[in-house]
Amino acid sequence: MIIFRTDTPLGRWFDICLIASIIGSLLVLIMGSVESVSQRWGTQLNYLEILFTALFTVEYLLRLYCSPKPWAYAKSFYGFVDLMAILPFYIALLVPNAHFLGVVRLLRVMRIFRILKLVQYIQDSNVIMRSLWNSRRKIFIFFSMVAILVTIFGALLYIIEGPENGFTSIPTSIYWAIVTITTVGYGDISPVTTLGRAIASLTMLLGYSILAVPTGIITAEMSQEVKQQKKVYRDHRDLVMCPNCMKNDHEPDAFHCKHCGSELPEHEERVVKITGKTGDYD
Amino acid sequence: MIIFRTDTPLGRWFDICLIASIIGSLLVLIMGSVESVSQRWGTQLNYLEILFTALFTVEYLLRLYCSPKPWAYAKSFYGFVDLMAILPFYIALLVPNAHFLGVVRLLRVMRIFRILKLVQYIQDSNVIMRSLWNSRRKIFIFFSMVAILVTIFGALLYIIEGPENGFTSIPTSIYWAIVTITTVGYGDISPVTTLGRAIASLTMLLGYSILAVPTGIITAEMSQEVKQQKKVYRDHRDLVMCPNCMKNDHEPDAFHCKHCGSELPEHEERVVKITGKTGDYD
Amino acid sequence: MIIFRTDTPLGRWFDICLIASIIGSLLVLIMGSVESVSQRWGTQLNYLEILFTALFTVEYLLRLYCSPKPWAYAKSFYGFVDLMAILPFYIALLVPNAHFLGVVRLLRVMRIFRILKLVQYIQDSNVIMRSLWNSRRKIFIFFSMVAILVTIFGALLYIIEGPENGFTSIPTSIYWAIVTITTVGYGDISPVTTLGRAIASLTMLLGYSILAVPTGIITAEMSQEVKQQKKVYRDHRDLVMCPNCMKNDHEPDAFHCKHCGSELPEHEERVVKITGKTGDYD
Amino acid sequence: MIIFRTDTPLGRWFDICLIASIIGSLLVLIMGSVESVSQRWGTQLNYLEILFTALFTVEYLLRLYCSPKPWAYAKSFYGFVDLMAILPFYIALLVPNAHFLGVVRLLRVMRIFRILKLVQYIQDSNVIMRSLWNSRRKIFIFFSMVAILVTIFGALLYIIEGPENGFTSIPTSIYWAIVTITTVGYGDISPVTTLGRAIASLTMLLGYSILAVPTGIITAEMSQEVKQQKKVYRDHRDLVMCPNCMKNDHEPDAFHCKHCGSELPEHEERVVKITGKTGDYD
Repeated sequence: MIIFRTDTPLGRWFDICLIASIIGSLLVLIMGSVESVSQRWGTQLNYLEILFTALFTVEYLLRLYCSPKPWAYAKSFYGFVDLMAILPFYIALLVPNAHFLGVVRLLRVMRIFRILKLVQYIQDSNVIMRSLWNSRRKIFIFFSMVAILVTIFGALLYIIEGPENGFTSIPTSIYWAIVTITTVGYGDISPVTTLGRAIASLTMLLGYSILAVPTGIITAEMSQEVKQQKKVYRDHRDLVMCPNCMKNDHEPDAFHCKHCGSELPEHEERVVKITGKTGDYD
Repeated sequence: MIIFRTDTPLGRWFDICLIASIIGSLLVLIMGSVESVSQRWGTQLNYLEILFTALFTVEYLLRLYCSPKPWAYAKSFYGFVDLMAILPFYIALLVPNAHFLGVVRLLRVMRIFRILKLVQYIQDSNVIMRSLWNSRRKIFIFFSMVAILVTIFGALLYIIEGPENGFTSIPTSIYWAIVTITTVGYGDISPVTTLGRAIASLTMLLGYSILAVPTGIITAEMSQEVKQQKKVYRDHRDLVMCPNCMKNDHEPDAFHCKHCGSELPEHEERVVKITGKTGDYD
Repeated sequence: MIIFRTDTPLGRWFDICLIASIIGSLLVLIMGSVESVSQRWGTQLNYLEILFTALFTVEYLLRLYCSPKPWAYAKSFYGFVDLMAILPFYIALLVPNAHFLGVVRLLRVMRIFRILKLVQYIQDSNVIMRSLWNSRRKIFIFFSMVAILVTIFGALLYIIEGPENGFTSIPTSIYWAIVTITTVGYGDISPVTTLGRAIASLTMLLGYSILAVPTGIITAEMSQEVKQQKKVYRDHRDLVMCPNCMKNDHEPDAFHCKHCGSELPEHEERVVKITGKTGDYD
Repeated sequence: MIIFRTDTPLGRWFDICLIASIIGSLLVLIMGSVESVSQRWGTQLNYLEILFTALFTVEYLLRLYCSPKPWAYAKSFYGFVDLMAILPFYIALLVPNAHFLGVVRLLRVMRIFRILKLVQYIQDSNVIMRSLWNSRRKIFIFFSMVAILVTIFGALLYIIEGPENGFTSIPTSIYWAIVTITTVGYGDISPVTTLGRAIASLTMLLGYSILAVPTGIITAEMSQEVKQQKKVYRDHRDLVMCPNCMKNDHEPDAFHCKHCGSELPEHEERVVKITGKTGDYD
């Protein structure tokens, strides 16, 4: 099957076409929202949109047809995303006023994940994902802390500043606190009174410092992952073979074969070779 | 005692109800501050508020009654928070103009800590807290440095820009310096003169760089904590038992039993099992 | 000598008075710049200012008198700061229009460093300072990179947006680029054209990513420092003595003596004891 | 050849002159864009510009003449940058309206790289560059994630807020999402509706957290680099020789010779000595 495998030349060519048409259809959608563009090129963009939707429909039906279990595919996450990429177009044909559905098609951007999954970035993507997954509890606790801080500081500024300075309600004040604690700082709402500014300064300094917590969490996990990767390689140095002279036993930081000087495979590929797993978790 | 223990089914059910009513009462308070909502649903929100306060009062009295040392509980941090969650309501009944007290009730949000303390996130919360605690001195020094920098730069811009550009006093200028050094940047006060902008640029670059200091502090501590946790486990690999085949001696990064393939307990639970401590510090 | 030593009770009491009067005189200066305060309490603040300056003058003369080498003290960094804390007051007496000199007195804030130097935060302060010092070259390279990026992007937006959108000159555009790359984002100058916004987006994403570089530099150094500290302790575990039972040989992460259960000295103090150095570099 | 080597006194003097004239010509260009300066000093700046361009032209021709392979130099990256530094001036002489070309000359700033390459910051620059290079895939994945998030959140706010609140098109909304997720927060476009603010808050918190990912990536790599550097040194401690007493075998953290007390060479120089490589990659 061409469309499900990526290691044949035809499969790879198919993937490149697919990724190009996904990005193309996204560009059509994005440009169509700019008024000056849509007034001038509206018809052409519409034709392109029809073309891309037709392509994706054919691809969807082919996948359904070729899949050994069509229903399992249709119910899977990727099946759902693939359907969402074409369905809004057909609904818009039936229901005239469903203009807002057009933007749902932007979810096509998630189809890019399917492509990324197939190609060679798997290993690195997994290091990131595994780090995030391992620290999911710490991240949850961190966000609970942020939620509590934001509620307290938002309420404080609601009392101190009051509606006349833009803090019209507690939800608005919590929005201000989030804008401040994440150091975004739009400036649409900002404290005016002296006490309000003092409390706001405290909020900023807190936000500035606790930014270190998620960084620390992710970095600590990621350091372990990188070290683990290097250790795995070191323990199995006899398994890496020079593609030129066929000798092995290379140092973990070697980029060139010490016997003949030709380039060695990339670090990530070595690990895959040694551990025999591509790090594919789902 | 149902309300103090969490490992019985009834205790767990009680905790879930408690957390739901805390969040519910918070939502009532927050929504009540939105004018359009309070005009329309004001009466209903008031009834809900009375209900939640009654619930919390009953719970507080129960805790006082069931506690072996009622006075110790009342004086403890959690006893104080529990009291603060209900007292403003009764004061507002007596003193008609104590509207602002209503927001004190938002401190109920801190009651969530008590629940978090009981459930299974203790271990991870402790890694964060211990890292922060171990680096308390470094963080204090960091904030002293920030305070000094902010005073100097605030004073500088007060001289350079002057009251006509919004830098009306040194406290206001210090507020500007904090807004700038934490990279929040509201834009309500911003330098206009060339020299002021040059000094402001310096402030920004400084703020941008010293952000690395708290991150470095926390990360260095956290890396040690994570490594320590893994080492503890490695040294005691014979203590982790597969829940299925009852065999032990598993690798530190094993997710599945190597003897029968069934899933092993989570990393955090293993550490608790091995060290015999739940990491509860207070 | 009371004023130079800190390990006698009198010396410690003197230090606390000194730090209080430094902070007091800073507060007087800061509050004096607020118009509403200075109109009402101006005379009182002036008297307080005279009092603090007199105190600092006496202290300065005492230090000069007691120092074995008065001239070396007067020429040192701290001697200069001490002089700067009092000189502006006397100049202002002679020259009537030297109002702006008043703010120079804010440099008194740097006198706090002298106190910090004396007390127990030395070790931690040194970890931070040594990390910064070890990475001084990497930080210099990082700032060169930032300077180059900021010049290029500033010039680009000067061409694209032009004076009509606020980018009046290249220095102004470089100021904008610094505001953007450090993620401060005042919003006083912001791109309006589509191309300008696209380039600005690139600037933001770059700034967002290269923020990771100083963090990485500091963290990598700091991790080494923390690890080194723990290693030093581990190698000399026989040197840490329990203050109660006088036995030694404690684990590096022990908080309590394993022989009698009484509390052990803090981690930092142990290291000082073992290495025999207080980490005092100057 | 004086201009290509840096280790002779004459070569070093030449380099210092070159770097001074690069910075000088940059300042002339930057100041020339300020209207008040160019009106008053316009003629003088023009003369300076002609002088610097003449200098660079002579240097370029000398390099071409002295280079063993002139064509290879002209085609190299540095040859191109050197040409770009002088060409716009001559084109502007021929084509009268090519004012905008003037700014291309700002690319001279990149000539500074050539100087930095020659001097002693190579080793540290390489640690940064190698860390970035090793994590290029992880950084690419991170930016893909950011691109996807920004598209989705931008589209969401385009639907929710609509053109009347400043979100005039999807590209504008994506620009807003980038401004928000990078925590820049200009405030020129900001959500007004309650739902829009809720989604925006989510965007901010996401941006705040995923900032930890690039930091984690770079830090993990950099820690490995620093550790590797120290390990290399430790394994070859007999190769570091005290410049005074000519004895060796020093600890990795030694700053002074343990035999005679004189200062040892800097850490970076030792590594170069030991590994025999200057880390020069191109």
